[in-house]
Amino acid sequence: MDGKVPETGREEQDIVIGRNACMEALRSGREIDTLFVAKGERSGSIGAIIAKAREKGAVIKEVDKKKLDFMCGGAAHQGVAARAAAHKYVEVDDILAAAREKNEEPFIIICDEIEDPHNLGAIIRTADACGAHGVIIPKRRGVSLTYAAGKSSAGAVEYVPVARVPNLPAAIEDLKKKGLWIYCADMDGKPWNEQDYSGAVALVIGSEGRGVSRLVKEKCDFTVSLPMRGKINSLNASVAAGILMYEVIKHR
Amino acid sequence: MDGKVPETGREEQDIVIGRNACMEALRSGREIDTLFVAKGERSGSIGAIIAKAREKGAVIKEVDKKKLDFMCGGAAHQGVAARAAAHKYVEVDDILAAAREKNEEPFIIICDEIEDPHNLGAIIRTADACGAHGVIIPKRRGVSLTYAAGKSSAGAVEYVPVARVPNLPAAIEDLKKKGLWIYCADMDGKPWNEQDYSGAVALVIGSEGRGVSRLVKEKCDFTVSLPMRGKINSLNASVAAGILMYEVIKHR
Repeated sequence: MDGKVPETGREEQDIVIGRNACMEALRSGREIDTLFVAKGERSGSIGAIIAKAREKGAVIKEVDKKKLDFMCGGAAHQGVAARAAAHKYVEVDDILAAAREKNEEPFIIICDEIEDPHNLGAIIRTADACGAHGVIIPKRRGVSLTYAAGKSSAGAVEYVPVARVPNLPAAIEDLKKKGLWIYCADMDGKPWNEQDYSGAVALVIGSEGRGVSRLVKEKCDFTVSLPMRGKINSLNASVAAGILMYEVIKHR
Repeated sequence: MDGKVPETGREEQDIVIGRNACMEALRSGREIDTLFVAKGERSGSIGAIIAKAREKGAVIKEVDKKKLDFMCGGAAHQGVAARAAAHKYVEVDDILAAAREKNEEPFIIICDEIEDPHNLGAIIRTADACGAHGVIIPKRRGVSLTYAAGKSSAGAVEYVPVARVPNLPAAIEDLKKKGLWIYCADMDGKPWNEQDYSGAVALVIGSEGRGVSRLVKEKCDFTVSLPMRGKINSLNASVAAGILMYEVIKHR
């Protein structure tokens, strides 16, 4: 989980907060400059985190719990935080290249204005689990990789490439030119389990309140629907995304 | 979303907090005794909520925003809260009876020590969407129907019957005697999409950290697994539950 740090040098840096997040950041090979540990905190996994940080050549600093609270903006840090190179967004082409390297058909998740960082985090976590090659989010609307998104991703944000694009419909147009089929989830589509998802796939997940936006929907090749048999007419965005992602991987 | 209210009378009561939650509570026919509206708050859906409350015979009280803040324990109330009869848990037999009434094979979700109210809420929301007949939770361990669970359920908690049982393994044993097949999700099972889920189904969802507990797992007829192709070795509990619930309903 990353929060922007007040400018300390020329390069942008993030604070990674909490035990799992620090451990995943260290494991992933992300550049960690300093590990901050609350004074007297030695319980549970802290020892392993310190050892890993030492191995990676990070500076280890013991600080007052209150200073750590302040650094983390009041977030639950469990006695540990790290100063790291800012989370790097990738380019869409990097995601496609990653698929090529693995010799796999690209599988990309496109988040159309997801607003809840917990949903974005859970989507990134599921993208990791099902072997998707990356996630695309819009630059201006919707949530970005905040520390809450990182926390909800359970560390997956360290491994799943995320690209931020200025214009989603244009990015989708470009993916289509590169041979991807674009699927979106909406109310008026084909039943989700009757669709063929073979080949190169980009799956568009709409926002929590409004679903997939009109301009994005117009660019999609296929619309699929999850049946709604109850009184509440929608699913949590990350749950819907999960159901569809695991449906897609049946075809690969 | 429901929070316990300081004792005001002989009967247990809940506070339902926020616009969607109040509207769903009114729509569902739940007994609402008083609707509290913040002074001067007339924007958006508030008018419709007041009209519905009046139609249902509830007392409508205008209160200071600060009083409302206090009543709701600081939760985001969006200018409205209601005092309602306490959320009623049902018996497992009521869930089975509901399935019989609809002339459907029972489909029940069993939450084994889910700790995060947002996960419980999202599971209840998905249970509503996929037409499951009810949810079973343990009485002592795991989270119960708190206001956070209610909020994450997007109001589905008003429609999906939830039973609380003192002993999950015993409840499962009883369901088996009544002809249900018990499926749990764990690492060492059959691929989730190669399992036949026809007939009467109870689906066990394990806790976020530890998965399905040993005593519960021993009672299950089948174990199914979701493939984990990434670096993080698990899914969010409500996402995993959603994937499996929608797999089950393909068979019905």
